[in-house]
Amino acid sequence: MSTNSAEKRPKPASSQFGDQIPWKKRKAELKEKQKQWKKAKIIKQLEKQKRQETAERAEQEESQSKKGSRKRTGTCFSGRAFTVSVALPGSVLDNAQSPELRTYLAGQIARACVVFNVDEIVVFDEQGEDVKSVEGEFKGVGKKGHACIQLARILQYMECPQYLRKWFFPVHKDLQYAGLLNPLDSPHHMRIDEESEYREGRVLNKPPKQGKGSLVNCGMRKDVRIDKQLQPDLRVTVKLSKTQNQESRLYKGVVVAPHVPRTEGGLYWGYTVRLASCLSIDAGSVFTESPFKEGYDLTVGTSERGSSVDQATLSPFKHLLVVFGGLQGLEASLDADQNLDVTDPSDLFDLYLNTCPDQGSRTIRTEEAILISMAALRQKITAAFPDDSSSS
Amino acid sequence: MSTNSAEKRPKPASSQFGDQIPWKKRKAELKEKQKQWKKAKIIKQLEKQKRQETAERAEQEESQSKKGSRKRTGTCFSGRAFTVSVALPGSVLDNAQSPELRTYLAGQIARACVVFNVDEIVVFDEQGEDVKSVEGEFKGVGKKGHACIQLARILQYMECPQYLRKWFFPVHKDLQYAGLLNPLDSPHHMRIDEESEYREGRVLNKPPKQGKGSLVNCGMRKDVRIDKQLQPDLRVTVKLSKTQNQESRLYKGVVVAPHVPRTEGGLYWGYTVRLASCLSIDAGSVFTESPFKEGYDLTVGTSERGSSVDQATLSPFKHLLVVFGGLQGLEASLDADQNLDVTDPSDLFDLYLNTCPDQGSRTIRTEEAILISMAALRQKITAAFPDDSSSS
Ligand SMILES: C[S@@+](CC[C@H](N)C(=O)[O-])C[C@H]1O[C@@H](n2cnc3c(N)ncnc32)[C@H](O)[C@@H]1O
Ligand SMILES: C[S@@+](CC[C@H](N)C(=O)[O-])C[C@H]1O[C@@H](n2cnc3c(N)ncnc32)[C@H](O)[C@@H]1O
Repeated sequence: MSTNSAEKRPKPASSQFGDQIPWKKRKAELKEKQKQWKKAKIIKQLEKQKRQETAERAEQEESQSKKGSRKRTGTCFSGRAFTVSVALPGSVLDNAQSPELRTYLAGQIARACVVFNVDEIVVFDEQGEDVKSVEGEFKGVGKKGHACIQLARILQYMECPQYLRKWFFPVHKDLQYAGLLNPLDSPHHMRIDEESEYREGRVLNKPPKQGKGSLVNCGMRKDVRIDKQLQPDLRVTVKLSKTQNQESRLYKGVVVAPHVPRTEGGLYWGYTVRLASCLSIDAGSVFTESPFKEGYDLTVGTSERGSSVDQATLSPFKHLLVVFGGLQGLEASLDADQNLDVTDPSDLFDLYLNTCPDQGSRTIRTEEAILISMAALRQKITAAFPDDSSSS
Repeated sequence: MSTNSAEKRPKPASSQFGDQIPWKKRKAELKEKQKQWKKAKIIKQLEKQKRQETAERAEQEESQSKKGSRKRTGTCFSGRAFTVSVALPGSVLDNAQSPELRTYLAGQIARACVVFNVDEIVVFDEQGEDVKSVEGEFKGVGKKGHACIQLARILQYMECPQYLRKWFFPVHKDLQYAGLLNPLDSPHHMRIDEESEYREGRVLNKPPKQGKGSLVNCGMRKDVRIDKQLQPDLRVTVKLSKTQNQESRLYKGVVVAPHVPRTEGGLYWGYTVRLASCLSIDAGSVFTESPFKEGYDLTVGTSERGSSVDQATLSPFKHLLVVFGGLQGLEASLDADQNLDVTDPSDLFDLYLNTCPDQGSRTIRTEEAILISMAALRQKITAAFPDDSSSS
């Protein structure tokens, strides 16, 4: 840099006196220095590339040996293969007494799901609001109705790591009281200097150089150069390379599917949020629109009229769905579902469970029922995967 | 009454004309009527007494046969002999972001305890507030500090049946946002026409007639005449007589100890609230000031650093105490306890349990931990009393 600024400097007054030879000499010296600097840089880069290739190979080998040992012993695999989804009606928000408490209630739901490592929250409509996306029209916080959209939006907001929120959640009336929300404190909400194999990030709007991957903001002191060129403003999950050049202006990483921290790292990695237009069989319902190809292979309905959870056992599953009702219970949610003949909700689920036998209050609120039910099911889920060291 | 007012009436003008005989005759007639009315009343009372004696004898016989069969089979007894207490530091309130949420948080704690049939809530001081009674000085809702007193007051307020609140809880700043509290909906919060063997009541300030018991307001359409003369404004538990004379202006009942609905009826009957000046060994501590003669015979501490609840079993107990920490956990509560050498909380409890292994959030809030922990312990409590039909 000092070389550049030297070149741009106006010729000194002394040049007028014909003493140009020392300057030519100086220029030649500087050119030589630049050449050597470039060479050193290339060598450094080559070294880095080599180190990273080695690291990546080591990682690959490690993960392959993990898979191998998993096949052999069934206990060395540290990923989690199954998922847990929770579904509830957005109308629960209408059970709050003020706009602040409405927000707080949404936060209670988010926290309850995170405490129990829930991977997907489905907000379903039991009042014919007929909404499919949080982008739609809405009436804003504090108003009754549009509860599904508001609940979904607050859930998404909370799940998003703090350092990405200002990008993905512009100021919005639904989030007016977000300051009251208790943080999720989940593993994917990293602090700036925290070390982690995975991080959530946002693709930056800086055009990457030819042949290089995009830059991603992962909430660290440096941006991350990923392996692909991606559309700006995408939210991505990044796996950071094991070895980083501390002197580089950038970290290096690769983009992975959002499930990888869970399936390979065994980490809880937050939840996705889905809006469903009804509980059961319509297109766009809780059941039919599962993001999992195979759908849910184990479904649990919850009700004080269910059979006691104490006698229940869960069979091993890939995708568990636990469904909660609103103020009037799942019976009311079914009544609102015009496509459905079933009126007894127990016909709709593999298990219909009372998760709190002998309850001391006439009624348990949905946000309480999530904590209680997931606490009762947690141990049964663990028991369904006896060989899985990650759940023991 | 019409007779009385007739007697007091000034003599009519006609008496001046010497026509006094009709009046004498009238008086005699009235006296006779009164005599007959009194006689009828006595007969009615005798009949009532007889009916009640029969009912009481039937009740006694029933309860004796219950006790007998309990001895024989161990399964017909419907009361609950054991108690469950929960202790937590009042400082948890300081973790709320607004006066409204401070109140709401207290309500969450009350509801969590009621859902799991908790009989006693102990609010302990971990900040040297040194308070023993809710009657003391306080700074009012919304102020940090004095959290123990405010938490205790809100818990007591919520536990009190609605129809008695105006008597026992005069307007108070601590209760300013009580309108935001979700009701407990516990069995002892009776609606006006609900039939129940037991009711909570307040002794009325009407001097009872010679030889008769006090009148009690039990939130019904008629007051209740109890068997004893008690001080006005006492809160009492009343057992209503099985048979009532529907025509009487009063119901009849007897005063029982507050534990009777639980020990004899097997009903959950709310919680008592106790303030403790510290966690452990001081006079006035959580442990030493137990209202139960025998003290607590099973104590459980809760912490993410405890051993997994999944492997724990509870031995049968009379009085279980489950202790929760505040923002900084039980370690901090112990540090604040100057009388104590123990610094490892696990030394203080029979069991020190992690009730939520693999939690997906770095930290579980105390109000969440109560629901989660009691849900995990519920089934273990049930399992500790295999012969008790009331807990199955
Ligand atoms: C306010 S409750 C619904 C009460 C409604 N009156 C009923 O009878 O179902 C809201 C939801 O909490 C859950 N819930 C409440 N008590 C429960 C229990 N004992 N076991 C399992 N789930 C329960 C159910 O999902 C229920 O739909
Ligand atoms: C905010 S937490 C305390 C966290 C504190 N940093 C600690 O390390 O203990 C408040 C209380 O919730 C309860 N708690 C939290 N997580 C728990 C768990 N996994 N198992 C049992 N109790 C837990 C404990 O009583 C704890 O004192």
